[in-house]
Amino acid sequence: MTVAINAARLNDHLTALGQIGRDDLGMQRVAFSHLDIAGRNYVSGLMRAAGLSVRIDAAGNIIGRAAGSDPSLPAIVLGSHTDTVPSGGQYDGALGVIAAIEVVHALRDAPRTLRHPVEVMVFTNEEGTSFHRWLLGSRAVAGLWEAEDFAAVADDGATLAARLPDIGGNSSRIEQARRRPDELACYLELHIEQGPTLHRGGFPIGVVTGITGRSVYHIDIVGEANHAGTTPMALRRDAMPAAAQIALAVRRIAGEMEVCRVGTVGSMDVHPNAGNVIPGRVQVGVEFRDERMESLAAAEVELRRTAAELAHAEQVAITVTAQRNTPSVPIAGNMQQLIADAAGMAGLAHVSLPSGAGHDAQAIAAVTPAAMVFVPSVGGISHAPAEYTTPEDCANGAQVLLNALLLADAR
Amino acid sequence: MTVAINAARLNDHLTALGQIGRDDLGMQRVAFSHLDIAGRNYVSGLMRAAGLSVRIDAAGNIIGRAAGSDPSLPAIVLGSHTDTVPSGGQYDGALGVIAAIEVVHALRDAPRTLRHPVEVMVFTNEEGTSFHRWLLGSRAVAGLWEAEDFAAVADDGATLAARLPDIGGNSSRIEQARRRPDELACYLELHIEQGPTLHRGGFPIGVVTGITGRSVYHIDIVGEANHAGTTPMALRRDAMPAAAQIALAVRRIAGEMEVCRVGTVGSMDVHPNAGNVIPGRVQVGVEFRDERMESLAAAEVELRRTAAELAHAEQVAITVTAQRNTPSVPIAGNMQQLIADAAGMAGLAHVSLPSGAGHDAQAIAAVTPAAMVFVPSVGGISHAPAEYTTPEDCANGAQVLLNALLLADAR
Repeated sequence: MTVAINAARLNDHLTALGQIGRDDLGMQRVAFSHLDIAGRNYVSGLMRAAGLSVRIDAAGNIIGRAAGSDPSLPAIVLGSHTDTVPSGGQYDGALGVIAAIEVVHALRDAPRTLRHPVEVMVFTNEEGTSFHRWLLGSRAVAGLWEAEDFAAVADDGATLAARLPDIGGNSSRIEQARRRPDELACYLELHIEQGPTLHRGGFPIGVVTGITGRSVYHIDIVGEANHAGTTPMALRRDAMPAAAQIALAVRRIAGEMEVCRVGTVGSMDVHPNAGNVIPGRVQVGVEFRDERMESLAAAEVELRRTAAELAHAEQVAITVTAQRNTPSVPIAGNMQQLIADAAGMAGLAHVSLPSGAGHDAQAIAAVTPAAMVFVPSVGGISHAPAEYTTPEDCANGAQVLLNALLLADAR
Repeated sequence: MTVAINAARLNDHLTALGQIGRDDLGMQRVAFSHLDIAGRNYVSGLMRAAGLSVRIDAAGNIIGRAAGSDPSLPAIVLGSHTDTVPSGGQYDGALGVIAAIEVVHALRDAPRTLRHPVEVMVFTNEEGTSFHRWLLGSRAVAGLWEAEDFAAVADDGATLAARLPDIGGNSSRIEQARRRPDELACYLELHIEQGPTLHRGGFPIGVVTGITGRSVYHIDIVGEANHAGTTPMALRRDAMPAAAQIALAVRRIAGEMEVCRVGTVGSMDVHPNAGNVIPGRVQVGVEFRDERMESLAAAEVELRRTAAELAHAEQVAITVTAQRNTPSVPIAGNMQQLIADAAGMAGLAHVSLPSGAGHDAQAIAAVTPAAMVFVPSVGGISHAPAEYTTPEDCANGAQVLLNALLLADAR
């Protein structure tokens, strides 16, 4: 029953998209930029060439649809995104979109008509670099837009409402982008792992067990700025040593203590940040990720306990503010099995693993059963120009995506 | 033999200067700014009103001179600066200048003519906020200009050579600002302590034993930036924990270990400084201060040892670059005694203490014997709008400065 994807065409299209918005520092297709729009135009053309009828919804998502043989059935959706982080890589998002189009193209070439309609969705602003609102398109489809999305303002002062028309969207009609559960059969997404597990383990295919939850905290440490030459050590209320101990505690909570899977201090802003002034204030950005929400809760308890101890010991004020709490999204067992079976059909070994990064699938999971296929990231590198997945692994992933679509269509 | 300063006039002038270049955030008389020039114009007028003949030297220093009765004698110099750090305080530098002028004014009022000529020097850019070159005027007088001074460029791209004429200077003739040792008898400077020792101890007068040496280091920590959600804890080469341990080690070296008097990490620059990216690079600014150069050398050994250990343990590259090594400047015993005797003449208790901050006196000490009088800083606060010294303490300091001048004149 199987159909083969065209590996050469897949990788040619992936390479071609990787030329759009590339400079010496990497891919620069930040959502809503002219480079992003150039990328969107390229994949719209590929979608039409694959026989899809293409429209843009109110959230700016590009949606291509192929009719199925049974008009009463809901659509199976394949999707991902083409926007990138600044100076990002060629595969994150792009592989999932190009592979989805290749799957439809291969079915047309066979020719093979499925029972279900198939929709390819290219979601707006997955990365959230623009407007600091991520999963923007997929959340619109899932009915998960928030008040903050409507009020979003970019760093240059532009409002989202003003920019959405640039990509064919319209925020005043955003509700029209929302899909009802009865319109959709399921959602399948191929993505690079963005971590080292598959590449180090030699597994060509990863079956995603769930998408990690993420807790973000902003920690504000206020001591007293003073002259670094004249203030005795014993009389200082230096915010820096408290910040340093927070950073080490975050690593310890996820590392030695194994309270949650990962913990990171990615940012630290020191005031006044002058060599000869004792820092009066340090702001620390903390995040924890885990598939189990109870582990994230335990990490927060430990973080707050540490902060309270440090505030006392260091004679500084420490405020821990929970910024955002993205719940983990489990993948249903039968959807994991679909991917495992699809890998088996292709004769490819697989391993089950959680997704450490967020994906459009986690939003779409709110409206229809979702599953994800991972392929190896060489060295575990992503969000950087060195991001790389071999052409063979890209083709393997696309074939598993196609096989999963066939299995889902037969259900 | 004593002459009394006019405390009311002193504090009136100090308050008036404190209105020039003040905004809600503090004093903004950054050197070469129009506010600095307004402050310079104000004190030039005070100098003339005190009977001084005023000129501006090639470094932009304002120099007022009163003749003495013995034309063969060299000048006794009183000095400080009127420039401030951004958002600085009202007393740092300003007190020394206004007090020096008041001393001359009080002698004229008495009337009392000294044997030696007296010069009041208002030094250019003591703080070094502009052009990142501090003690600019006093180093010119002492013949300590460096190649970097000639090449100095401000953050806005302006060269020092282009800006010096704005305050009446001329860098092509900088050698003319240099004074020969035989032209000067000694140098006396009144300054606020900028630390808590006098205020906490209840001492009205501090006799400065020496000006602290300072070693500045730039530490560059390079790990590997990666995705904070997908990179397992055990596979990270995170630059942040190494930076945190450097910060704690610097405090420990000066604190618990007492290797040197103070040690500070005042700045930390994290790259890319994004919540969801493991920091690939952190740059850390470190400084140590002590009156003993051997203590600074020992602190450096300990810093480098710690950095090497951390580079190994954290699997990151750490480069420690010595940025600047300002030698400590001892005050000669007879010059310390001069200040102690002057305090005694005024019936004021004194304590001996080192200066933790740098001052014009440390440059001038290269060309003539220097001494410094400290008065209390309430709460030890300086370089901030809350910087405060009581009018009584200001007057006490000015009286001790006058007494020291009389004693020096009689030597």
